[in-house]
Amino acid sequence: MIIFYSNEIIDNIAILKEDEARHCSKVLRKRVGDRLRLTDGKGRFYDAEVIGITKDECKLLVKDKWDGDVLDYKLTIGISLVKNISRFEWFVEKAVEIGISRIVPLICERTEKRNIKEKRLSNILISASKQSLKAKFPYLDSPIKFKDFLDSNESKEVYIAHLNDYSEYLGKLIKPKSEIIVLIGPEGDFTKKELEYAFSKGVKPVTLGSSRLRTETAGVVSCQIVNTINEIT
Amino acid sequence: MIIFYSNEIIDNIAILKEDEARHCSKVLRKRVGDRLRLTDGKGRFYDAEVIGITKDECKLLVKDKWDGDVLDYKLTIGISLVKNISRFEWFVEKAVEIGISRIVPLICERTEKRNIKEKRLSNILISASKQSLKAKFPYLDSPIKFKDFLDSNESKEVYIAHLNDYSEYLGKLIKPKSEIIVLIGPEGDFTKKELEYAFSKGVKPVTLGSSRLRTETAGVVSCQIVNTINEIT
Repeated sequence: MIIFYSNEIIDNIAILKEDEARHCSKVLRKRVGDRLRLTDGKGRFYDAEVIGITKDECKLLVKDKWDGDVLDYKLTIGISLVKNISRFEWFVEKAVEIGISRIVPLICERTEKRNIKEKRLSNILISASKQSLKAKFPYLDSPIKFKDFLDSNESKEVYIAHLNDYSEYLGKLIKPKSEIIVLIGPEGDFTKKELEYAFSKGVKPVTLGSSRLRTETAGVVSCQIVNTINEIT
Repeated sequence: MIIFYSNEIIDNIAILKEDEARHCSKVLRKRVGDRLRLTDGKGRFYDAEVIGITKDECKLLVKDKWDGDVLDYKLTIGISLVKNISRFEWFVEKAVEIGISRIVPLICERTEKRNIKEKRLSNILISASKQSLKAKFPYLDSPIKFKDFLDSNESKEVYIAHLNDYSEYLGKLIKPKSEIIVLIGPEGDFTKKELEYAFSKGVKPVTLGSSRLRTETAGVVSCQIVNTINEIT
């Protein structure tokens, strides 16, 4: 099943552009009259008929539409950027496949990399969403400083995963169908100052199990722990 | 914390070879008299002193040894090889980080790739084990045909993850601290014939949640589901 993505659906006309249009016209060689399935990335699927096609743009007439399944919980992961950007990209792809609502790249004191190619990361997010048949695509924020992110989420349920022996397991603390934020630090962990600031804001420390995990693995593991708790309860 | 690996520890003498020796002598520039930590990959850690060093071999005198933590469950994942080998390598790295006992590359009817670079995969396994401070390294089998693998595991607790709407969630079926095998199919899933053969052997169908997952993601997700159930109970 191939799903196209369009962010331009007005009344019953949908437009595919750029990669989506090229994939439709060049790779799949769709012609006027062919049917295809698409999503608006906001929760809805569409069946549509090709009514105009060039290599740069496909015009579609919507024939049917329906709401797709969406997550019954809300998970935001704030995660430090890592030096090797392909590892961060890998996290984005896998988190989308498993299920996530929002990804926030964090700049922490020990974060070495401070910028991302937003367009490239956004394409990975769209591609993984389509691949795993998601009707609602997750949000991808611009990188933000750790402290600024905490300040803008004061009243939320926030957990911070860091290297320690005294915290409870994330999966034991969260409630199903709730809205939570999980914070993952850089290689070398959060600084003591960052942790103290987080605790002063009511953020709860958690562990993700007894293994020492890389940053991007901790991100995916958090995603799956939250998913599992929602699946079994 | 850097951990070395030696498969040659006899009495109180440990030998580092190849990459391990080069890393010790060339990268970290260890000298006679320096102390370092190593593992035998079988469950034990050692503190040792360098007593001889060249770029190809380091000779160490063991000063102390102790048992490392090991998983309190046994998880084998039999997983189809995938066309893009870097995705399979990624699965191995992440499964080792999260915790797994044995990885069995499967050749199913729809498996397109049928061979692996065993030495390269084994190095990834060793490197991820060291990185995540594992004293006991998982086993990595040679690729085996799906049917042969089933035939050689008749009396075991085996689950097969495939695309369907009627199965129970893996996390609801497994018991903590048990020994289980999870089977993951290729892109395009197991064939009907393979599924029927598995069911005839008592293998239980499971889902890994409502998302459609790539093969390598399904492998990592299985690992984390089993880990979470063991952590919360």
